[in-house]
Amino acid sequence: MGRIICAGLGPGDPELISVKSDRAIRAATDIAYFRKAGRAGQARRIVEGMLAPNAVEHAMEYPVTTELPFDSPEYIAALAGFYDDWASRLLEISKTRDIVVLCEGDPFFYGSFMHLYTRLLGRVELDVIPGIPGMVGCWTATGQPITWGDDVLTVLAGTLPEADLARQMAAADALVVMKTGRNLPKIKRALAAVGKLEAAWLVERGTMPTERLARLSEVDAEDCPYFAIVLVHGEGRRPEREGLA
Amino acid sequence: MGRIICAGLGPGDPELISVKSDRAIRAATDIAYFRKAGRAGQARRIVEGMLAPNAVEHAMEYPVTTELPFDSPEYIAALAGFYDDWASRLLEISKTRDIVVLCEGDPFFYGSFMHLYTRLLGRVELDVIPGIPGMVGCWTATGQPITWGDDVLTVLAGTLPEADLARQMAAADALVVMKTGRNLPKIKRALAAVGKLEAAWLVERGTMPTERLARLSEVDAEDCPYFAIVLVHGEGRRPEREGLA
Repeated sequence: MGRIICAGLGPGDPELISVKSDRAIRAATDIAYFRKAGRAGQARRIVEGMLAPNAVEHAMEYPVTTELPFDSPEYIAALAGFYDDWASRLLEISKTRDIVVLCEGDPFFYGSFMHLYTRLLGRVELDVIPGIPGMVGCWTATGQPITWGDDVLTVLAGTLPEADLARQMAAADALVVMKTGRNLPKIKRALAAVGKLEAAWLVERGTMPTERLARLSEVDAEDCPYFAIVLVHGEGRRPEREGLA
Repeated sequence: MGRIICAGLGPGDPELISVKSDRAIRAATDIAYFRKAGRAGQARRIVEGMLAPNAVEHAMEYPVTTELPFDSPEYIAALAGFYDDWASRLLEISKTRDIVVLCEGDPFFYGSFMHLYTRLLGRVELDVIPGIPGMVGCWTATGQPITWGDDVLTVLAGTLPEADLARQMAAADALVVMKTGRNLPKIKRALAAVGKLEAAWLVERGTMPTERLARLSEVDAEDCPYFAIVLVHGEGRRPEREGLA
């Protein structure tokens, strides 16, 4: 029996993959990754040049992406069937050999692999290698610490209702908002409502060569990919401020 | 002129250091790290066996740790002087060669390096290499995803007042509480007040050989180091639950 190894890829720069994931990826004879149908896929792009010449690739193509609402029964059923199917296929492969599943960022932090993980748990040896979450790459790109001292950090999905976003934003010191894209106008309104819009940044592909960094207030709301992340830095307790007054 | 390179170390397992940090650490001729006076230091312990034989080590020993309250003027002044002094010393070294500063977890996420960083910014070439935050190692150790779908994740410091903790805990789906130690009884009361104590885990040294994992309700409040982390997993939207009913 082989293992199913989920290799966290980190925020995008291949140099930020962990030594352990890097080794697993380079040694893999079978490698699987999620992607949109017809696309190369971001996970696969990150490992370009790292795979063994004869590695067998398994592209797990989402049956739907944004055509259906996330909460519609059709969307949920299509996704569930997709994960069931791939859990079975990976299990079959693992009967004779190891297989490495790529996962952007950290696998246990809003990762797609989790839906396979819960289906595979107890049925095969599973090894999850953590990674640097995408948000960490994004705040590194801003060149500014995200949290200090006793700062409260809250991570939100831009898909939440506007009132929930505003309430959470008001209560936190530092903020990360994922799943932006077409939710950006709503996210901007919620930040403005609690006086935090001017402090917010929009970061795309943090740590990658195509990284983009902008003040959110200056970004056109139509110009935002789904994976871009909104950040507000904390301003908490720090010795140099209070101690040197 | 050399650079000052801050190398994020990740959660503790040396194999979880990024390829980029790993290379910087192994190539370093001068290496600096924080530690308590008289201790080996956790950062130094993580890189044991990785340093070049003739690397010069600079132990930055905190002048105070828990003897003084965090918010006392004496504590703040002592820390500020300590950071000022080390910023000058690192700057001096960087005039002739690169120096690598070790930082557990991710440098921009509640890291001590940030206090040097703000003092050095604009005065020398600075390179911050992100790392896997300690909390990511801890939730990986639980073998359970921390966030799903639209879950709200909130990161709290156990040093916050009990009422603030309880209010934040009630509003979040997934929780991380850092700076536990002697704050544990207060953290447990706050979690109990919002009905989340039974779901909470206490994790020490996640990903290290000495890793410890326990249900928080079963942990003796006196038996908790400062760096142990409390976790509550999110239970958000996921296709396998709603789609297969």
